[in-house]
Amino acid sequence: MKELFKKVDQNLNHMLQDVIEICRQPSIAAQNIGMNETADMIMAKMNSIGIKTRKMPVKNGNDVIYGEIKGTSDKTVLFYDHYDVQPPEPLEQWISPPFEPEIRDGKIFARGVSDNKGPLYTRLHAIETILGIAEKLPINVKFLIEGEEEIGSPNLETFVLANKELLQADVCVWENAHKAENDHPVIRLGNKGMLYVELRVKAAATDYHSRFAPIIPNAAWRLIWALSTLKDVNEKILIKGFYDNVRSVPEEEYTVLGAMAGQEEKIRERAQIKELLNGVRGIDFANKFLNAPTCTVCGISSGYTGQGSKTVLPCYAMAKLDFRLVVDQDPYEILGLLRKHLDEHGFNDIEIVPHSTTKPSKTPITDSVVKIAREAGNLVYDKPFIIEPCAAGTGPRYVFSDWTDMPIIGIGPGYPGALNHAPNENLVIRDYCQAVKHIIAFLYQMKQYQVPNS
Amino acid sequence: MKELFKKVDQNLNHMLQDVIEICRQPSIAAQNIGMNETADMIMAKMNSIGIKTRKMPVKNGNDVIYGEIKGTSDKTVLFYDHYDVQPPEPLEQWISPPFEPEIRDGKIFARGVSDNKGPLYTRLHAIETILGIAEKLPINVKFLIEGEEEIGSPNLETFVLANKELLQADVCVWENAHKAENDHPVIRLGNKGMLYVELRVKAAATDYHSRFAPIIPNAAWRLIWALSTLKDVNEKILIKGFYDNVRSVPEEEYTVLGAMAGQEEKIRERAQIKELLNGVRGIDFANKFLNAPTCTVCGISSGYTGQGSKTVLPCYAMAKLDFRLVVDQDPYEILGLLRKHLDEHGFNDIEIVPHSTTKPSKTPITDSVVKIAREAGNLVYDKPFIIEPCAAGTGPRYVFSDWTDMPIIGIGPGYPGALNHAPNENLVIRDYCQAVKHIIAFLYQMKQYQVPNS
Repeated sequence: MKELFKKVDQNLNHMLQDVIEICRQPSIAAQNIGMNETADMIMAKMNSIGIKTRKMPVKNGNDVIYGEIKGTSDKTVLFYDHYDVQPPEPLEQWISPPFEPEIRDGKIFARGVSDNKGPLYTRLHAIETILGIAEKLPINVKFLIEGEEEIGSPNLETFVLANKELLQADVCVWENAHKAENDHPVIRLGNKGMLYVELRVKAAATDYHSRFAPIIPNAAWRLIWALSTLKDVNEKILIKGFYDNVRSVPEEEYTVLGAMAGQEEKIRERAQIKELLNGVRGIDFANKFLNAPTCTVCGISSGYTGQGSKTVLPCYAMAKLDFRLVVDQDPYEILGLLRKHLDEHGFNDIEIVPHSTTKPSKTPITDSVVKIAREAGNLVYDKPFIIEPCAAGTGPRYVFSDWTDMPIIGIGPGYPGALNHAPNENLVIRDYCQAVKHIIAFLYQMKQYQVPNS
Repeated sequence: MKELFKKVDQNLNHMLQDVIEICRQPSIAAQNIGMNETADMIMAKMNSIGIKTRKMPVKNGNDVIYGEIKGTSDKTVLFYDHYDVQPPEPLEQWISPPFEPEIRDGKIFARGVSDNKGPLYTRLHAIETILGIAEKLPINVKFLIEGEEEIGSPNLETFVLANKELLQADVCVWENAHKAENDHPVIRLGNKGMLYVELRVKAAATDYHSRFAPIIPNAAWRLIWALSTLKDVNEKILIKGFYDNVRSVPEEEYTVLGAMAGQEEKIRERAQIKELLNGVRGIDFANKFLNAPTCTVCGISSGYTGQGSKTVLPCYAMAKLDFRLVVDQDPYEILGLLRKHLDEHGFNDIEIVPHSTTKPSKTPITDSVVKIAREAGNLVYDKPFIIEPCAAGTGPRYVFSDWTDMPIIGIGPGYPGALNHAPNENLVIRDYCQAVKHIIAFLYQMKQYQVPNS
């Protein structure tokens, strides 16, 4: 292992050049920019390492990159990653342009460097390092790299269900994890689900001079009033039945959550706010962060928002909303409850346009892969792992957990200041180096994996 | 008079060419586009007619155009108009581009053609027509044409108070009036006031990935909640004290308001809505439209509003609001009440940026200029005038009515489908022709004006 780790240190600059190169290539699924070019670049890299790679077409969607490489044991790991990134806007808030990667203060800044191109490349560089010394990998490895994660993976479920045989594995390693605020590495065992919708309202045939305000309805007001009925100022979601299927948190998870407590102060400082929402601290903070479903206005727009004043009565308004869901909330059911809520509150003029749905998913803490990932990590990290029973974020884990009991764990180089989805997204170079080593050690430890109930 | 009217009919095409030419030149005060160029073009036209014209500088603002021309009697009319226009956005909703005037269906379409370049040119063409036949005008005429009306006339009051002598007149003719829905011409005797503000909220140091929604505050939500406390779904404004100074409508005005009843159906049809706000009809409609103060969201913006989905927690949100005020509400007082309201409702994180303030103003129905304008109109229009005791819109009449008892009346070529401030602003060519004739007749009738109490 020492020799392999030394190689990683020696080759780090080459690795970073690879990461910079792939981040320079935009791949914005929401705007259909650069998807094919990015897939081609990644496949070229994979093939050069010795991973047999092919593009698998997705009907009305972006191709999936599938890759595999045999090892010396019969154990198999499936890496799930994605090559699409979030839109880079607002552009003016980036210190260096989103698609011109720049190294500053020991970090690489670029859109997608943390979510998920950097983490993907830690897997590739781990394999490249092993094969630089050994003839074969210790276990079999498969890759499923999709191009639609940032738009809610609309085609992943169909793809996975049509390719169960191909994707069969003992363990699935999820796209990324983020170090905790106290710099402890993290293993993630679940994801929240999501319902993403756009609300739209057309209140009149055209915009009006605002002198008509006493008699013509205003789309902005309609939307504001409707939104204000969805959640109160204490963050309680007011949609009837919204919390009905929320699974209560088992006692054994609270122990694990306890390890996260203490991170809240750094989060608070970084956000430059007086206190976190509702002043949560300690285990309450961890529980809220990982186990609370949410309703977020991601964007709202109506009327004139340019320079100066315009006295206009807007006829159209829209808002983008995401609901983060926890086990066992179902996004389709929540969509129905939302429609019912709006109708019952007198807002049947508000149209709901569903954008995407993702179910929540959780792997049991007791699965032996957790121990393996932790022991592999002990060879790399100074600090012990924190287990996150569920990530605060969303991912399409349910697509796998719905058809197989294969455990799904998230490990990777992210950290809380990574600014995923926001301007100045970045990755710490030291974390990158550690993550490559962790994957190397994990692949060797995986030879000992015990399939549950076998 | 017949000979003059005939001249108007003969020269109509030349007149329309003048209007098209001035509308082709943008003059967007809010964006500081084309102000000087527009002023120069208008002055060239005025000078060519024989109106002595000069630019009067405004400190930190757009120049005022002042013009005057002597007549044969000692009576004087002051025309108040403006050469700035509203921003043209949203551009994609214009059938023909806002600054490429086009004639369709007997109308000219262009930004500013109705508000207020067309009406201004009816005055100029009336004078040009008279001087094409007579040697002198029947009365003295003065012009005050400002370049900041659409941004709330921030410098007009200072200008007027510094030039009282110059602006002294018997009657002031206001920029425009709009025909009623039933095609009756209108005389306007007042304007609502206005407070225009921008609300801003910064909730955290940066945008966040929306997985942070359980713990980091969301600027969009803060703004939505704050706005929802300002007005209820029945349009009642909830700011404490907001209605305290609203003057009750005198009985004699209700008679006049009665003449407006019946227009609501056309307004409703044009807006393509099932009913007007709160289902108002008849005299209730007229009273609400002209006498109700309002609170309008003119624009709101936060987070990601582009194509597709982005799961982001926005750190910044803003809204533009106008409050239309009626006698005797004071915009500065309302600004104070708004601040107090937000603070008392827990929204001291919401910043208020005042954009402009305008006081409401009203001229008595009994002034003899009303009779003169009406009689002049009878020579032109088939239908009798409707008197509007107050316009639904705002204008800086108070700047004059605060220092002089000079009556202020609005007459002009507008109509309810003019789409002022909105895409596809337009002016009916027949209305233009009639308005030129009305001004001609009015200037002759004004020789008989009786100054009140003299």
